[in-house]
This record gives sequence, C-alpha cells and structure tokens, in this order.
Amino acid sequence: MKKTAIIMGSDSDLKAMQGAMDTLKALEMPFAVRIISAHRTPEAAAAFAKGAADDDYGVIIAAAGKAAHLAGAMAANTILPVVGVPMKSSTLDGLDALLSTVQMPSGMPVATVAIDGATNAALLAAQILALSDPALAKRLSDYRAAQTAKVLEKDARISAEYSNL
Amino acid sequence: MKKTAIIMGSDSDLKAMQGAMDTLKALEMPFAVRIISAHRTPEAAAAFAKGAADDDYGVIIAAAGKAAHLAGAMAANTILPVVGVPMKSSTLDGLDALLSTVQMPSGMPVATVAIDGATNAALLAAQILALSDPALAKRLSDYRAAQTAKVLEKDARISAEYSNL
Amino acid sequence: MKKTAIIMGSDSDLKAMQGAMDTLKALEMPFAVRIISAHRTPEAAAAFAKGAADDDYGVIIAAAGKAAHLAGAMAANTILPVVGVPMKSSTLDGLDALLSTVQMPSGMPVATVAIDGATNAALLAAQILALSDPALAKRLSDYRAAQTAKVLEKDARISAEYSNL
Amino acid sequence: MKKTAIIMGSDSDLKAMQGAMDTLKALEMPFAVRIISAHRTPEAAAAFAKGAADDDYGVIIAAAGKAAHLAGAMAANTILPVVGVPMKSSTLDGLDALLSTVQMPSGMPVATVAIDGATNAALLAAQILALSDPALAKRLSDYRAAQTAKVLEKDARISAEYSNL
Amino acid sequence: MKKTAIIMGSDSDLKAMQGAMDTLKALEMPFAVRIISAHRTPEAAAAFAKGAADDDYGVIIAAAGKAAHLAGAMAANTILPVVGVPMKSSTLDGLDALLSTVQMPSGMPVATVAIDGATNAALLAAQILALSDPALAKRLSDYRAAQTAKVLEKDARISAEYSNL
Amino acid sequence: MKKTAIIMGSDSDLKAMQGAMDTLKALEMPFAVRIISAHRTPEAAAAFAKGAADDDYGVIIAAAGKAAHLAGAMAANTILPVVGVPMKSSTLDGLDALLSTVQMPSGMPVATVAIDGATNAALLAAQILALSDPALAKRLSDYRAAQTAKVLEKDARISAEYSNL
Amino acid sequence: MKKTAIIMGSDSDLKAMQGAMDTLKALEMPFAVRIISAHRTPEAAAAFAKGAADDDYGVIIAAAGKAAHLAGAMAANTILPVVGVPMKSSTLDGLDALLSTVQMPSGMPVATVAIDGATNAALLAAQILALSDPALAKRLSDYRAAQTAKVLEKDARISAEYSNL
Amino acid sequence: MKKTAIIMGSDSDLKAMQGAMDTLKALEMPFAVRIISAHRTPEAAAAFAKGAADDDYGVIIAAAGKAAHLAGAMAANTILPVVGVPMKSSTLDGLDALLSTVQMPSGMPVATVAIDGATNAALLAAQILALSDPALAKRLSDYRAAQTAKVLEKDARISAEYSNL
Repeated sequence: MKKTAIIMGSDSDLKAMQGAMDTLKALEMPFAVRIISAHRTPEAAAAFAKGAADDDYGVIIAAAGKAAHLAGAMAANTILPVVGVPMKSSTLDGLDALLSTVQMPSGMPVATVAIDGATNAALLAAQILALSDPALAKRLSDYRAAQTAKVLEKDARISAEYSNL
Repeated sequence: MKKTAIIMGSDSDLKAMQGAMDTLKALEMPFAVRIISAHRTPEAAAAFAKGAADDDYGVIIAAAGKAAHLAGAMAANTILPVVGVPMKSSTLDGLDALLSTVQMPSGMPVATVAIDGATNAALLAAQILALSDPALAKRLSDYRAAQTAKVLEKDARISAEYSNL
Repeated sequence: MKKTAIIMGSDSDLKAMQGAMDTLKALEMPFAVRIISAHRTPEAAAAFAKGAADDDYGVIIAAAGKAAHLAGAMAANTILPVVGVPMKSSTLDGLDALLSTVQMPSGMPVATVAIDGATNAALLAAQILALSDPALAKRLSDYRAAQTAKVLEKDARISAEYSNL
Repeated sequence: MKKTAIIMGSDSDLKAMQGAMDTLKALEMPFAVRIISAHRTPEAAAAFAKGAADDDYGVIIAAAGKAAHLAGAMAANTILPVVGVPMKSSTLDGLDALLSTVQMPSGMPVATVAIDGATNAALLAAQILALSDPALAKRLSDYRAAQTAKVLEKDARISAEYSNL
Repeated sequence: MKKTAIIMGSDSDLKAMQGAMDTLKALEMPFAVRIISAHRTPEAAAAFAKGAADDDYGVIIAAAGKAAHLAGAMAANTILPVVGVPMKSSTLDGLDALLSTVQMPSGMPVATVAIDGATNAALLAAQILALSDPALAKRLSDYRAAQTAKVLEKDARISAEYSNL
Repeated sequence: MKKTAIIMGSDSDLKAMQGAMDTLKALEMPFAVRIISAHRTPEAAAAFAKGAADDDYGVIIAAAGKAAHLAGAMAANTILPVVGVPMKSSTLDGLDALLSTVQMPSGMPVATVAIDGATNAALLAAQILALSDPALAKRLSDYRAAQTAKVLEKDARISAEYSNL
Repeated sequence: MKKTAIIMGSDSDLKAMQGAMDTLKALEMPFAVRIISAHRTPEAAAAFAKGAADDDYGVIIAAAGKAAHLAGAMAANTILPVVGVPMKSSTLDGLDALLSTVQMPSGMPVATVAIDGATNAALLAAQILALSDPALAKRLSDYRAAQTAKVLEKDARISAEYSNL
Repeated sequence: MKKTAIIMGSDSDLKAMQGAMDTLKALEMPFAVRIISAHRTPEAAAAFAKGAADDDYGVIIAAAGKAAHLAGAMAANTILPVVGVPMKSSTLDGLDALLSTVQMPSGMPVATVAIDGATNAALLAAQILALSDPALAKRLSDYRAAQTAKVLEKDARISAEYSNL
C-alpha cells in the first residue's frame, strides 16, 4: 500500500494530530510523521513534496496553524493529493488557518478538512487510497459500520433513559 | 477510468461550476453532471451516493450554497472521496457554505476547496484518480507545466514593460 | 397532546440540551430524546423524520454542532416544523453551526434559535403546540408571568441595594 | 384558518418580502401585511402583538434589518410563535440582522430563518398552522412534491445535456 | 444634577457593570440601578424610558448581551441620550450584542461603547452631563489628568526597568 | 446654542455625511464642517479638539473609515462628548471602521453609531444638547412625532393594498 | 539606491498595484515588477527571494489574494524586509488574504499593510530605505508635507462651503 | 546602531511583549521600552514620534489592543518605519486590534505583524536595520539558521518516534 505522510509545521501540533495517527493505525495504513515548516525549512518542504510520489507516498496530510501555508507549499510541488488540516492556535479560533488552507488559487487545490480535523484527514486519506485497494475499502467500510453501530447503541440507551412519554 | 460526478444543489450553480467541467474535459476524464438537492430530493441524494461506487464513480464533486449540506449528505452514504465546493450566494459571500461544507464532524470528511473553487475541485479529482492511472498523471503533470509556463511568460513580458530600473 | 422530539447529533450534546428537557417537563409536555446523526446514521435520520407525523410528533427539535446538518436533514423529510439548535463546539464559538442551521435554501425552512438555545427551543415547541391546545397555552402564559415576576422582584431588590441617589 | 401576519420594519422591505406573500397566497392562507417599527412605532408594535391571538392570528412573521429588534419586540408581547426574517441591508450583508434576530435571550424564542428568507418564513408559518389543519397539510405536501418534481425534471434535462461519459 | 440610570437586562450583568457604578461614584454623580428586560418586562422598559425625563434622569445607560435590544427599546421611548453597553456572553464574544446595539436604524440612535465597556459608559454620561455642569466638568478634567499622570508615572518606571540602552 | 462639529477624515466622506448636515439644519442647530485627518493632519486634529470647548462647540461628530482613529483622536483631547461614525469603505463593509471606533480602551469613550449612520449621529448630538435646551427638545420631539406619523401612514396604506384577508 | 521589488501572484493584480508603482516613481525609487506565484512557480519564488539581497534589492513588496502565501514564501527565503499586500478577490472581501499574510508564525515576519494597500506598501518601502538615504528621506518628508497641505486646503474650502454657523 | 523603541499602550501588555525584548537582546540591538497611550497621553505620543529620528531611533514598535490607534498615532508623526503589534484582549480575540492597526488609510502605512506577534515585530525591526548593518545581518542570518536547525533536529527525532512504516 502507498504510504501516507503526516506533516506538521511544528511539534506543538503533535497532540492535536494524534487522531490522525490513531486512525491510520486502526486502518492498518503505513505512515510517516514529519516536522517540516513551510517558513523555517522551506527547502525541506519542497524536497519532501517533490520526492513524495517516488518515495511511494499516496497522500500527504499537512497540518499548520495561523497563516497556514504548509499544505499549499506541499501542493505546489507535487501532484499527489494534499489534505490540509487547519490548526486552532491562540487567537482567532483557527479561522486564519482555515482560510489560509482552503482559499487556494485556481490551479492548485488543497483538500481541506475541519479545523483540528485530524481524524477526518486520516479518513480522507483512507478513502482516497481505498479506490485502488479493496482490502482497505473493506476495513474502511467496517470502520464506518462500527461508527454507525455505536450511535445506534447510544440512541437506544439514551432514548430509554431520557425520554418522557 | 473511473467516472467523476459533478452534483449541484441547483441548476443556478451551473455557470459557477463550468470550470470543473472544462477542466475534466481538458484532462480527458469522463463525468456526469447531476442536479440533486440534499433538501428537495433527499432520496435521490442518498440513492446516488449509495450506488456511486458500483456505478464506477471514483470521486463525487458536490457544489452547494448557503447551509450547504450536499457534500455532507453524499459523504454520509459512500466511502468514495467527496469533494465539496462551497458556492457564493446572495449574502455572506460564501462563508456560510464554506463552514457548512468544511466543518464536518469527526468520522465523515469532506475534501473542501475554495469558495466557488470549481476548477480546483476538478483538479483534486484528477489528482486522486491519477494515483492509479499513470496516463492521467502524465496529463495532469503536463497541465501543471503549461500553467507554470504561462506564469513565466507573463513574468517576462510584464517585468520588461513595468519595471523602472 | 402531540409529542416533541429532541434529536441530538451526539450524546456529548446532552448536557447543553438539558434546558430543553427541563422546560418541556415544566410545561408538562411529553417528549422523546434521541441520538441520531445526519452523517453517521443517515437512514435512521430519514426514517425518523418520515415517520414522525404518523408517530404523533408535533415538533422536532434538532441540535447539532459544527457543519450542523441534522435539522436540515429532518426538515427535508417531514412537513412538521423543525426547530434547529446550533451547538457551540471547540472552535468558532458556534458560528459554523448557526450558519449551517439557519441559512437553509428556499423551500425548506428550519426554525433556528440561538446558539446553545435549548430552553428557547422547548419554549418555541410549546408556543407552536399551544396554538391548538388551550391548556398548554395557559401553562405557557403562567410560565411567562412567572418569568416576568422574577425580573420585577430582582429589579426591586437590586435597585434598592445598588442605586446611589 | 388562523391568519398570518407579515410585519415589516420599513416599506423598503416590501420587495424582499414578496416571496412570503406569494407563498401564503399559493397555499391559500389569509394574511395581513403591516408596516410597524419596533423603534419608530413601539406602541403600535406592542399593541399588535398583545392583540394578535385575540385577532385570530396564528403566526407572526417579522422582518427587519440592521439591529433587527422587531421579531423580538413581537415575541415579548405574545405567546404566538414569531418567525424572524433578518433583512440584508447596505452593510454587513445581513449578519447584523441575523444575530439581532436569532440570539434571543433564554425565555423568549424567535424562530429565525435565513437572511432574506421570505419564502421560508411563509412555509414555516404553513408548517406550524398545518399541525391542526389537515387541508393545509395536504396543500403543503403537494407544494413540496411539486418542488421535488421540479428538481428531478431539471436533473434529467441537465444531466443529459452536460454529462460527458 | 440630573440622575443617570444604569439599566441591565439581567442581574448576571451586575459584575460586568461594576465599573460604571464605581466611576459614577468617583465623579459624585447620582444614579439608579435597575434590572429591566426588553423581552421579559417590556412594559417596565417602556414605562421607565417614557418617564425618565420627567423623573429627572439625564442619561440612560443600558447594558445587555446577545440580541441586545434593551438600549434600542429605551431609545424608542425617550429623547434622552441612551448609552448602550454590549455585554459579552457565552458565545460569539459579544459581537452579537455589539451589532444588536450599534446598528440602529436611521432615526433612533444609541450611543454605543465597547463590548463590556462599563467604565466608558459612565464617563460618556459624565461628558454629556458636564456640558451644563461646570463642577462636574472640573471633576471630569481632574479624573482625566489623574489618568494621564498614572500612565506617565508607569512610563518612567517601566522605561527605566526594561530599556536596554 | 452650542455648535456641533462634523469632522471627516476625507472629503470623500461628504456624500455619506450629508444626512448629518440635513438633520442638523432641520433641527436648526448651528454646525461647522471640517476635513481633518488623524493621520495626515494630526496637529490640526489635536488643536481642534483641545480648543473645541472654548470655541463653544458642544458635540463633536467624527466620521472616518478603515482604521478609523479620528473619533478617538478627538476624544483624547477634549472632554466634550464625541460621536463616532464608522464609514463603509471599499473592503470589509465598514467592520474595520466600526471596531476601530467603538472598541475604545477604558477611560476614553466614543459614542458610536451605526456604520454610515450620519443621520443618527446628528440626532444623538441633538439629544445631548437638548438636555439643556428646551426649545431644541421640543423640535426633536416634533421630529420624532413626524417620523412616527410617517410610519403609521405607510402602515395604513400598505396594509390596505397588500393584505389578503 | 537599493531597488524595490514588486511581486504579484497574478497579472490580474496589476491594476490594484498601480498605486505602488506610481508612488515609487514619484519618490524616484528604482523598482522591478515581477509576476511570480508561490504555487504555480514555487522555484522562481524561492530563487528570486534567495538572490534578492545579492541583486541589490532592499525591500520586497509581495501582493497576493485568497490564501495569500506569496509574501510568506518570500520571507522564508531572505532576510530582507518583506511587505505583504493582501488583495481583495471575488469573495470574503480580502479577509482571507489579510489573515494569510499577517498571521505569520513566530520567527518569520511579514510587514503587512491594508487590503489593497498598494500605495502604503510603496511608502513603507520608502520609509525603510530612507533610514540610510537622507535624500530619499527628504523626498519622503516633502511627499508627506504635500499630503498634509492638500488636506488643509480641502478643509479650508469645504469648511467655508458646508458649515452653517 | 540605531535604537529600536518598544511602545506599549498599557503596562498590561508587558508580558505579551516579552518576546520582542528577548529577541532584540539576542540580536544585540539596543532598545527603549515605553508606556505611551495614544488616548491617555496623546501629547507624549506625538512628542516621542516627532523626536524619534533625532533621538537616533531607527524603528518604532507599537503594541496596543482593542481600538489600537497607537501605531497609527506614531506613524502620523514620523517617517521612521512603524511596526504595529495588535494585542489580543478580553473580547474579539484581537480582531479589533488587527483591523485598527493594519487598515491604515492611504498615505500612512503601519507594518503590521500577527496578533500578539511580539517576536516577529522585533525580527522585522532587525531585518530593517540590517539593511545598513552587515554585522546585524550576520547575526540575523545565524538566528535564522539556528531556527532552521532546531526544526530539522525535531523532525529527525519525531519522525523516528512516531512514524509507522
């Protein structure tokens, strides 16, 4: 299976991105974690993105906060799909990172997920790679089914406890 | 090649989505155009999404404005990657559609592009399908190279005309 | 009396929705509490909404956060009035849920109350059902009168304590 | 059938509210149109709201822009359900009216629809009154079915014209 | 001297409005504190505002949160200047209250101060009343001078401690 | 009667401020119009504000757009009440000017009216000066009464024409 | 004198940046105009920034819209001061570009001016270069003086025409 | 070397501005710290700015919150480059200060950095002064190199620990 890269602009994003790592593990997907900054290590960023397809990566997940350029910098240097995760930081509640990630100019898309949406970034990577990997598609469908079952179970329990009919 | 679906919540979105159709054509990708509303035709929406994988679709592009639920409604019924395009409407400049599309709850991602980002939605679909289609990957790389060349050409011309050294 | 449904997208919304349950109880209105997700259990969502009128519900209160599609998904499948409660979540202070709930496209309204406005959702349900239930209208008027009396009492006490004339 | 009131803060809102009048007519619902300002004619506002139930109104639709207090002023003086329509004005794209209408304090709900959502306000009034009026419920279901049919027809036509398979 | 009224929509605003009370005391200005709600006690609100001029009030300070209609409701019933204080509440950081207070329609102004700007509301009342009260003008000038002196003193101390020249 | 000053940061604001001039004329209040910029003519700004009380001004209306510092610069140099009018400019719909005007730090209030609220600024000035001028108070009450009568007349006419009872 | 670079992400920004070119000409400052895209020509972007100091540039002005990464991409590759100009585009009124430009992470500043603030970008470049160029400082002071004189002249003319004393 | 001034509107900003002081020290740049308020000590503000060039300052860093006029007030009185630091305060997350600082009118730029961007303000001052100070340019390059090395070191460590290949 092609690998997924999880790139973060700073090691302070590790905790917020834990959900991505957990989800990729649960789906038995190989992944690399990297700390690469579009601004502090721009050459490493360009080098990684340029080599990613040859290094057998299939999807790049890029997480950054504030003026979040990391996903865009990745996208500019590869035709692999890049998933952007806007990080909430100390001000503006992640709106700055969201707009910096999603409002990419025509010609260079970033597949943006919700602010702090680490789990969804991993799921999107899985959905993309599952297109050509039936076994992964199966695991993803099972993951979804388990998720649905969990809500149904909660519904039954809570409905019984809280309803007033 | 797997097909791409372009779903719009209303035929009034056709003009704004022209860029997606043009781009898919330029990349020689087969696509269907559908008018399906998450609110006015919810059964058609669920049916389309549920059957999409079997109907040989690879990516679903969903475009909607205001409380834009279309992409989410697609995502809830398929494990195919869903690309969401928030549409600008008469008020709030598309911010409502952007947040309604991108802020999906954990477990159900939508790959969101910029407000009115029709061309980028098509390119993202191409990047995803190119992972298992080397010929498409080649056409995408050529598209990118042409795009780069165009900027370089403009740079040369404009730099010569406007600089004052 | 017709029943009121309180639907939440997640059991994590239970605490924020306590005010709705308390208010319905105070007004002696029967209600069911359900955990149904527009995205994780879309079939349950459609099924509930489609059957709600026949199940003798009169109003559906739907509470969800982020890209809050729950109220819209209910509205798409019933002609019962649907009251939407945008939930504040970890980012954007509930603005995403507010816009996702209130900015419904023409043809499909959701009666939206304030962010985290659980009590008001219950009161709105009561106001709607009271139109054809004079006894409920009487209890609602009493509730209002008590509310007014409480403010007047506080005014008297605080005015005496804090004024400096 | 109980009457619906359409109250506007200014006659400049007439055009934006035309959709409400058209929809009520299409559903054969009797309605009054009034120009009442929470700020310029506060006594008329209180008087109308206080007498509305006795005057056989069932729902009050209140449309206003900017610091839109009209719906709240109605709600404060009646237990009839009040539907608020935030009007877009010359600045801020209606966000001011939306927040002024929807963010009502606990105890006093306003059923808020989208910015400039005149048609939806009328439909919400119909949904409320249809709870105790089977004939209206039937007309509303027909209205919905026609709306759905229209989208399905467009889908067939546009899919045939624009798809590229 | 004419009195100043401090009206709050809820006793939960007492703490946030303490600065207004302290400032009026410091400037030796008589004031009444009242809990009056535009929505829960609309008649008390109208009655207070209508009688305020005859009751020898000169300025009305009205503080409210969320869909903050209190200042507007006061303004609609008096020609006394009304100072609006938008209160920060649990969501949206006071932006809702700010827009609900300041965006008044033409014909009915509210003199709005900053979110939670209790002290400034009192100072504005003092500036207004000082126009016809030289003794108050003198106290206000002294207050200002003391405020300036305090900054100058801090500047001297901190400049000496932190500069690195 | 004390004079009112209308200060604008730029002569491009003249048209938007016409309502203030018309209203002051209608209320027979003497006024000066000045073009003074907090940034381009800071000395003129400080000089005007410092001398305004001695020059027999009673209220200063200051209108500016973008990073609107004019009202604050006035307030810093006088104890006269300063009314701030945020001007809409080419971007951000006046939100920048609103926040720059209203969010004054503790100790230095600006009485802020709505974005482009020229007429209301004049009315607020009148309300302030009317506190010590019974004749102006009378004219202001008449102005209000005429405004109310106009709405009542429109209500009668439009209600007759548009209602469908 | 060191040169100033005016870099734009697209030739569609030429008109909006005309004010920068005019101002640099008026101040007799040599400048180059370049079309370089952080996303379409990332290598050209890095190469320009890396070589800028050696090519005798003193300041880089970078103008871009939407997810405006251009100024940040410049800043990442040079220690020359980079002035960022957020461009207004078809949605969100430039707020996306403003946040993408100004909210740079710690360690990598961009000197951001107003949305569409082309003239101010040029003036800032002049202020920076004037630190070590007394002749330029003189021209800048003259420019400022002319600007002040123009306001004073307008003030005299308009005050005479519009005041009503 | 020319001095840098760090001006704050209030001593409550000292902690948030510590990063600026630390950075200037690390780069061996002399600096003064001053508490000057555009509103409480406007004369001190104008006097400082007017004399700054003669007092051998090269850059003025001005930090303020809310309606942050301090940087603009500095800029209006000097042709030295002024770096504005918007401070986050108790409401609106610094958006008010950002817009009040960055949206300066044409003719009077402020070089704005991120909300609470104290370190970046110092680095920008260093970048400006380094244009004519090769030794400072060398220290700045070393600072950048150390910053880059730190990210590379973290990347190596974290990649080894968290990757799952």
